[in-house]
Amino acid sequence: MNRKVRLGLVGCGTVGRGVIKILENNRRSIEEKTGASIEIVATCDRRRISVKNARFYTDYRDIIAAPDIDMVVELIGGYEPARTIILSALRAGKNVVTANKAVLAKYWDEILRAARKHDRLVYFEAAVGGGIPVVQGLNEGLAANRIEKISGILNGTTNFILSEMTQNDVDFKSALKSAQVAGFAEADPTFDVEGIDTAHKLAVLASLAWSSWVKLGDITTIGIGGVSREDISFARDEYGYLMKLIGSAHMTGGRLELSVQPCLIARTHPFANVEKEYNAVCIHGDAADDIMFYGKGAGQLPAASAVVSDIIFLARQIAGGTVGKLPYVTYNPDKKLSILPREKSEGCHYLHFNTVDKPGVLSTIAGILSRYRVSIASVYQREPLIGVRSGVSIVMLTHKIICGDLLKALERIDSLPIVRSKTVHYKILD
Amino acid sequence: MNRKVRLGLVGCGTVGRGVIKILENNRRSIEEKTGASIEIVATCDRRRISVKNARFYTDYRDIIAAPDIDMVVELIGGYEPARTIILSALRAGKNVVTANKAVLAKYWDEILRAARKHDRLVYFEAAVGGGIPVVQGLNEGLAANRIEKISGILNGTTNFILSEMTQNDVDFKSALKSAQVAGFAEADPTFDVEGIDTAHKLAVLASLAWSSWVKLGDITTIGIGGVSREDISFARDEYGYLMKLIGSAHMTGGRLELSVQPCLIARTHPFANVEKEYNAVCIHGDAADDIMFYGKGAGQLPAASAVVSDIIFLARQIAGGTVGKLPYVTYNPDKKLSILPREKSEGCHYLHFNTVDKPGVLSTIAGILSRYRVSIASVYQREPLIGVRSGVSIVMLTHKIICGDLLKALERIDSLPIVRSKTVHYKILD
Repeated sequence: MNRKVRLGLVGCGTVGRGVIKILENNRRSIEEKTGASIEIVATCDRRRISVKNARFYTDYRDIIAAPDIDMVVELIGGYEPARTIILSALRAGKNVVTANKAVLAKYWDEILRAARKHDRLVYFEAAVGGGIPVVQGLNEGLAANRIEKISGILNGTTNFILSEMTQNDVDFKSALKSAQVAGFAEADPTFDVEGIDTAHKLAVLASLAWSSWVKLGDITTIGIGGVSREDISFARDEYGYLMKLIGSAHMTGGRLELSVQPCLIARTHPFANVEKEYNAVCIHGDAADDIMFYGKGAGQLPAASAVVSDIIFLARQIAGGTVGKLPYVTYNPDKKLSILPREKSEGCHYLHFNTVDKPGVLSTIAGILSRYRVSIASVYQREPLIGVRSGVSIVMLTHKIICGDLLKALERIDSLPIVRSKTVHYKILD
Repeated sequence: MNRKVRLGLVGCGTVGRGVIKILENNRRSIEEKTGASIEIVATCDRRRISVKNARFYTDYRDIIAAPDIDMVVELIGGYEPARTIILSALRAGKNVVTANKAVLAKYWDEILRAARKHDRLVYFEAAVGGGIPVVQGLNEGLAANRIEKISGILNGTTNFILSEMTQNDVDFKSALKSAQVAGFAEADPTFDVEGIDTAHKLAVLASLAWSSWVKLGDITTIGIGGVSREDISFARDEYGYLMKLIGSAHMTGGRLELSVQPCLIARTHPFANVEKEYNAVCIHGDAADDIMFYGKGAGQLPAASAVVSDIIFLARQIAGGTVGKLPYVTYNPDKKLSILPREKSEGCHYLHFNTVDKPGVLSTIAGILSRYRVSIASVYQREPLIGVRSGVSIVMLTHKIICGDLLKALERIDSLPIVRSKTVHYKILD
């Protein structure tokens, strides 16, 4: 190889060590594809990581300042100092690979503007879907399409927990513990469980799809902490529905509807077999129709596979002298997306009322729902579900209704003395 | 837009008209992504196609000779004159987009050498999987991986026919007729039904995956013409298996095993829900693990979506002046792949013997199988299947065995007078 591309690796945790491993193990085929050799010339971490022939720093500024580094690989995660590392690397004329969905979602505008300004590239395949090449698939493979809808199971931790609850009839807490034991949930799982990680990833995909910046604040985000085993087993056994945390972006009537929420899906839905730490993304384009990408969304080597693919394609461009002539992502900072507020979104819902056991309860509830145009498709009344101490469970599926109508009706219903606890409601995915 | 990229479109059939439609309908977003405007300046077909501001030719040589054409889009299919069009376009300094798996599979070496020699690019996303961006996913998104296995449902016609046979309990002939009525099978379906189209696509994917040229002659190719409704329904009802035409390339012990054949898959297999004209490809990389791509493998707009995505990325490079600095595909003409002959391949099989109804038959068959090291996992003897006029059906599932042993045992068994018709055998996919 006559050309060397030199990497500075910031963050040598699980994924970083995976990157080192792949670059070493698959060196020959990677060099063949790159047309250049790829060398890690420096690493930066809090704790010493030894990579052959590479310098070691504890301060990322030494990586930015190093004149022999062509590409900075940022794998520390979080907002800061990741943002500063990426921006200062671009400013210093270096290209960037990152796996960091949080920093991309929050600073999309700033990062993409900086890349453009300095004629450098930022690649981020590993930010969404682990080893699944969905960023590139959406950005390039489906470029001919007007994207109409994206929906995905984008977080391995929550999918693992919901799979566990569904398969083993356990509650959230013990499923979380299993996920932690299996290495699929962090000691502090807040970001995953509350749907924030999914929202980050959805923001990245939606920003890509609509060449704009989809902000976190525009995504209705509901986590899985409140999902009960009772609703999971009832939806499964009575209706054949499975519970999944779904990130969804849907362009409808010129407005973009954005949500992260636990949803029910039919067993025949393409997502029905997406279990445990697996992820899946379905993209609907006006020409390609539904395209699904599926694979491991977490784990050292799957994530590192995506990082190294980015490294290869950046390295090809560095070696070929073509970096910066074409931006990787089309981003139009002036494009204003109109966001559909949650209240205006349409869909079918699962409702679970817990009421006192008295005559007239069903008719009272049904009356209020009808007054708010919430049309009922099926009703099932039964003895209290396991775990609900007393009262009666009434479960309903609605026809397609407007979410705002439902929320108003439920507010009214939940204020009635006959209602024993806040009514549970989940959207049913098409 | 200050830069125009000029296209010559050869072949204006179903896909060609889809390309014209997408370029027109999505002009704005396509220009935004390309950073240039894309103009069809000439079309070529036997029958006149009118495209605004475009010249019309009936001789492709006029397209090749036109000095104002940057990119030739070849959509006529077949070996010739497609090969000549592609090679002469490259020689004339034009870049090429093609949807033609046949010409790529047969002339991979010649076409890729010509592209390299003339510093031009050949893109071919639509050659495999219709609208699914699997060529790019394999070539770029999974570039970090050593590919260990590729398996796919790659042909919409045969998948439609097998779905129809499975769901409606009909025989091959009437399922083929349904496929023709639905527009998913040609009047002469030979190429699809005999597995040749699947073999073309598998050759393209495998050539990409192993940076070499996988030849059609190295792929064991068995079509679906001999699949009976009896075996479909028996495998489904007794064992829960579904029949799919699978193209498979598996690197095992340094040798590549290549086959296209009807296989049985479990209902829990990711391919189980791939029905009708849908395609799916599963790629196993050493780092990314299993990645699946799924979507419409046929149809005007899905195929045109892939062609236009190629056009966009070629046009970006033409507009940016970077064409030819980097090849699209890594191809090493000197790399020799070692092919595993079918006889040495391992796997579990479904066997269906049709024998006379006499004592001792089972023990005779079992004895021969055992002599050839074919180990039996389960046996089921039953009244003749519907449609088999007389005799007895014995169905067996084997453990993992060597295919050559099985073929020798069956040759021996089929020569016995107790056997009434040639024994049916299908591989069971892992």
